[in-house]
Amino acid sequence: MTAMPKSQVAAEHAQTGLSVELGRETPLQLDCGVSLGPFTLAYQTYGTLNEERSNAVLLCHALTGDQFVVGPHPVTGKPGWWELMVGPGKTFDTDRYFVICSNTLGGCMGTSGPKEINPTTGRPWGLDFPVITIRDMVKAQAMLLDHLGIEQLFCVSGGSMGGMQALQWVASYPERCFTAVPIACAAKHSAQNIALNEVGRQAIMADPEWREGRYQELGRNPVGGLAVARMAAHITYLSESALHRKFGRALQDRSNVTYGFDADFQVESYLRYQGQSFVERFDANSYLYITRAIDYFDLAADYDGVLANAFRGVDTRFCVISFTSDWLYPTSENRAIVRALAAAAANVSFVEVVSDKGHDAFLLDEPDMFETLRGFLSGAATKRGLSSP
Amino acid sequence: MTAMPKSQVAAEHAQTGLSVELGRETPLQLDCGVSLGPFTLAYQTYGTLNEERSNAVLLCHALTGDQFVVGPHPVTGKPGWWELMVGPGKTFDTDRYFVICSNTLGGCMGTSGPKEINPTTGRPWGLDFPVITIRDMVKAQAMLLDHLGIEQLFCVSGGSMGGMQALQWVASYPERCFTAVPIACAAKHSAQNIALNEVGRQAIMADPEWREGRYQELGRNPVGGLAVARMAAHITYLSESALHRKFGRALQDRSNVTYGFDADFQVESYLRYQGQSFVERFDANSYLYITRAIDYFDLAADYDGVLANAFRGVDTRFCVISFTSDWLYPTSENRAIVRALAAAAANVSFVEVVSDKGHDAFLLDEPDMFETLRGFLSGAATKRGLSSP
Repeated sequence: MTAMPKSQVAAEHAQTGLSVELGRETPLQLDCGVSLGPFTLAYQTYGTLNEERSNAVLLCHALTGDQFVVGPHPVTGKPGWWELMVGPGKTFDTDRYFVICSNTLGGCMGTSGPKEINPTTGRPWGLDFPVITIRDMVKAQAMLLDHLGIEQLFCVSGGSMGGMQALQWVASYPERCFTAVPIACAAKHSAQNIALNEVGRQAIMADPEWREGRYQELGRNPVGGLAVARMAAHITYLSESALHRKFGRALQDRSNVTYGFDADFQVESYLRYQGQSFVERFDANSYLYITRAIDYFDLAADYDGVLANAFRGVDTRFCVISFTSDWLYPTSENRAIVRALAAAAANVSFVEVVSDKGHDAFLLDEPDMFETLRGFLSGAATKRGLSSP
Repeated sequence: MTAMPKSQVAAEHAQTGLSVELGRETPLQLDCGVSLGPFTLAYQTYGTLNEERSNAVLLCHALTGDQFVVGPHPVTGKPGWWELMVGPGKTFDTDRYFVICSNTLGGCMGTSGPKEINPTTGRPWGLDFPVITIRDMVKAQAMLLDHLGIEQLFCVSGGSMGGMQALQWVASYPERCFTAVPIACAAKHSAQNIALNEVGRQAIMADPEWREGRYQELGRNPVGGLAVARMAAHITYLSESALHRKFGRALQDRSNVTYGFDADFQVESYLRYQGQSFVERFDANSYLYITRAIDYFDLAADYDGVLANAFRGVDTRFCVISFTSDWLYPTSENRAIVRALAAAAANVSFVEVVSDKGHDAFLLDEPDMFETLRGFLSGAATKRGLSSP
């Protein structure tokens, strides 16, 4: 590991949207067998790395997230995906912690992925980009930490696919994780969730504009298929009760149904908006790659089918959080993680937050989550010798 | 009501796939305000109508079903959708009951719908077909019963959308329903279910081959979009545990993942097959119309928002059946029907069948459902004075 001089870190921070070329000398060995290098990792940081380099927090984003944890987002102008959680005085207190988030490998916000240029051909990668796994994503992040001169993270955390990465981090690099906070996730993707991802992929690949993944070169974009994929997925991020509370059967700007196929119901209008706004910021091929990485995730499979074996002898302190109304990664999946950690005699606390907001609760205003996590982090920070803000 | 001579009934039965032209003199007044007539209703019958015309059972099919309750299906060659339930000695015993099932208005198996020829223009209706409702479907069925000379049904039953029709039958024509058996349904479509239907519609309408609904005239077919719609819907017909039991994370004819976008997992292969086989037998515009009718269903809305008012003074005996793992029309929705019936002092029995097969359980081998229903029907048949087979 080669630590980067602090002056270089500071210089990069002056830009909006940092990125670094990695793997030029030692390429990234992907699970599929391909050696990837050099490749680019785009990332953002918030707060200041302390002298001891002991206050770094790596946040791992979910399927459609990116490195812009705190906004405004450079494409949408909207707040970051964890604006409620990260900032001065917030749960991940940037007065105390140095927060890092990188765009995932295969993503579409500056990190190498199907949308970026393949240096060998000078054309966009498209489907020539190698298929990646959650472990590959984590390996790339580890190379970023090497570059930043961070030996050990104070915390690695994320929700959904971000939580899978947090688990993989501890399994791959236990000594580099002082604490880990996987939220609303699972140690493996279920059959139902593989099926849901497959619907999204089929929607994209059925769009003639997808052109076998070569749409960029041809100046096309399978926005129709991508919007449908997003709409289908979006339903799984919410709960039935949240949809009922927000929309019920309320009509959209009309007093009676129109007996047609316009968006009569508010929930239809909302869903169409979700689809349309998504395609303005996301790449269809990235959607294929990242959902595939999630499908492939089965942490126990790498450890003789015994999840506890992934965590044997680990000193990392865990806080696992689930939500009562999450049906994508229900509490039962999170509890399976907790059971495995207990079986490995790991240090774990587990909280099931009561919420009707479904899977997306991890992105929303959930005071119980904030308070649980604040307490956990504060105790660990004291243990780690981090100064109070 | 004009009773059809029995000889004519017999003549029609000699054909495969019966159909009748209705509404020539008195058109069907649709909820959207359009008068539809003449229109065709395609139907099948099983068993023999008794002299008293008192043993008729109307079965109402679900979204993608049709009149072929018992197979072989003329298009697919497969068994009918309720082969397990209907036949000599079965729950709906064709030695005792005269079973009728008509293809729903808006459907694509011979009944007037977007796929059929608009008599005014001589071209397929496409989106010029009027948008229909569950109540319209039921009105059309009532006209068929008039044609067949059946004053009162011994039973009206169906699962899913078929159950909605059974409820609507009692609300619209209480004196014509001796018993009603709504299975795995709801008295209104929820926000989540409207959203799920909307995803399917958007998948179809996003397919460029859909051509604003005019694909038939243009010799095209939006099979890609329709297959995606089916795949998304199919997941909702199963349960997480059924998918886990059937497929888990098992791979399809391979020992390792391929790091590609082929169907690595059995559940993907299964889902693709469901999508592909569906498009061979179903029409994309019919899918739009029928899902829309389901979205619009809100029985209480026609009765001052009080569901019980739909059933006041009704003598019909009800048997309501739900399944523990059905998350499309969960037990809570079925219980709401039962509560309303109880509030209207109706005669109702309710059984929640323990099953891990999800919504589709109503089509599958569920001995508890068969036995519950057999007992209910047998008691009612005795009361009605139907002779034993």
